[in-house]
Amino acid sequence: MITFDREVAFEDVDAAGIVYFARLIGFAHGALERLFDDAPGGYRAIITKRGIGFPAVHVTTDFLAPIRYGDTARIVATVRKLGTTSLHAHFAMTRTSDGVAIATTTHIHVCTTLATMKKLSFPDDIRAALTEHLVVVG
Amino acid sequence: MITFDREVAFEDVDAAGIVYFARLIGFAHGALERLFDDAPGGYRAIITKRGIGFPAVHVTTDFLAPIRYGDTARIVATVRKLGTTSLHAHFAMTRTSDGVAIATTTHIHVCTTLATMKKLSFPDDIRAALTEHLVVVG
Amino acid sequence: MITFDREVAFEDVDAAGIVYFARLIGFAHGALERLFDDAPGGYRAIITKRGIGFPAVHVTTDFLAPIRYGDTARIVATVRKLGTTSLHAHFAMTRTSDGVAIATTTHIHVCTTLATMKKLSFPDDIRAALTEHLVVVG
Amino acid sequence: MITFDREVAFEDVDAAGIVYFARLIGFAHGALERLFDDAPGGYRAIITKRGIGFPAVHVTTDFLAPIRYGDTARIVATVRKLGTTSLHAHFAMTRTSDGVAIATTTHIHVCTTLATMKKLSFPDDIRAALTEHLVVVG
Repeated sequence: MITFDREVAFEDVDAAGIVYFARLIGFAHGALERLFDDAPGGYRAIITKRGIGFPAVHVTTDFLAPIRYGDTARIVATVRKLGTTSLHAHFAMTRTSDGVAIATTTHIHVCTTLATMKKLSFPDDIRAALTEHLVVVG
Repeated sequence: MITFDREVAFEDVDAAGIVYFARLIGFAHGALERLFDDAPGGYRAIITKRGIGFPAVHVTTDFLAPIRYGDTARIVATVRKLGTTSLHAHFAMTRTSDGVAIATTTHIHVCTTLATMKKLSFPDDIRAALTEHLVVVG
Repeated sequence: MITFDREVAFEDVDAAGIVYFARLIGFAHGALERLFDDAPGGYRAIITKRGIGFPAVHVTTDFLAPIRYGDTARIVATVRKLGTTSLHAHFAMTRTSDGVAIATTTHIHVCTTLATMKKLSFPDDIRAALTEHLVVVG
Repeated sequence: MITFDREVAFEDVDAAGIVYFARLIGFAHGALERLFDDAPGGYRAIITKRGIGFPAVHVTTDFLAPIRYGDTARIVATVRKLGTTSLHAHFAMTRTSDGVAIATTTHIHVCTTLATMKKLSFPDDIRAALTEHLVVVG
């Protein structure tokens, strides 16, 4: 489990004055990257040096309350399931100003060789890093 | 039913070289706006002049194939369900280069008074505009 | 000279309710791409198939009036100078709602081999395409 | 003078594989906000609670070297001139990986009442906060 704070940036809002819904899904990606921190070089090195990526194949999001500029999204990220090639990551987001839940989102990502876009079994070091964050919900 | 083409922009990609997944969900929002075209002034006037908005409360997306810079996403948008205050919109996206399906996404939006963020029954003109795009799937 | 219309998107604004200034500079890039339309495959093919890019080395922008969601930026783009490896592009932006000038921006781009990031003399077909838009200002 | 580190995000790049030039100008805005930290509530409260904003009227940027995903931009921000209603802010950006200069940018912002978009003399507390970062270059 990791906790990741993402301040709402000046340009994150939409014309309705709240954080643009698709950008909130992107906030979760910031937390996702942290789940790989214990693999050598972390998410960034995996992408840029090893040519391994994790395209999303499924994303389900419930938006519970708006968040605005001036506030910060606190994201608690866990791994819910780890298959041979797939990762189910869960993100619970609250506003730090008042603790109100703003969204929960589940992302399924597939381990992929970027050059060919073919599925790849998680390398051992990446699997080990992700397993540390595995929380099985009953 | 409306069909909406969205060219991939130079800055839509991520460090893996494909359109960033959360941005693809945003592409659907461009098509969503078109579903309101037959209400007076369209989506833009509803937001900016009438103070009515449609925050997303639920989004489910299946990503089927990547799309890259140089290609265009073709989005077929329909209304699948229209409640008193909620709209279920469905978007099927293909690449115009080869017709391959890239994503399907369903968004549930709630009609809302932006000043208070309270639910609002769809005004008749907006309901009429959306009803034209209603396609009930068996 | 080309004229390029760019509708303000729902997510283009900032927390002050106007189009985010850096995004307006990005709008000009959409017009820039059109200046390459007469080269085979256009800007997109040059980047993705020939591996040639045009990083900006200098950008100067005067912001004259705000633009908001619901409006469209009309961008008139010209080439002001074309060197061996550099392109000076000028963009004058107005609001289509009332014709008010919103910004002028000049971008200097350098023709570059993307793999090495080294300067490259403009290939003849690209130079010819850009020359059509050359407007020398007295 | 403040120093502000901004990690390159997964979605900050363009189809040429480097941070999108207009986004780099946006990076400077993150540092700009920090220049207001000593005013009560900082930049965010000034915008959202006092209705005062600082639209950019002029931005000049020299791009010196590319920056990629996996790196961090270090931004040194200073105030170069503080008029009755205008602020000249200067940003020098380097890559933290190797210390190479990536860009320098000067932004002129005007203190503005957001509701009317009229110029406003800097309130004393905001002027005091900004004056701390004033560095006059000979």
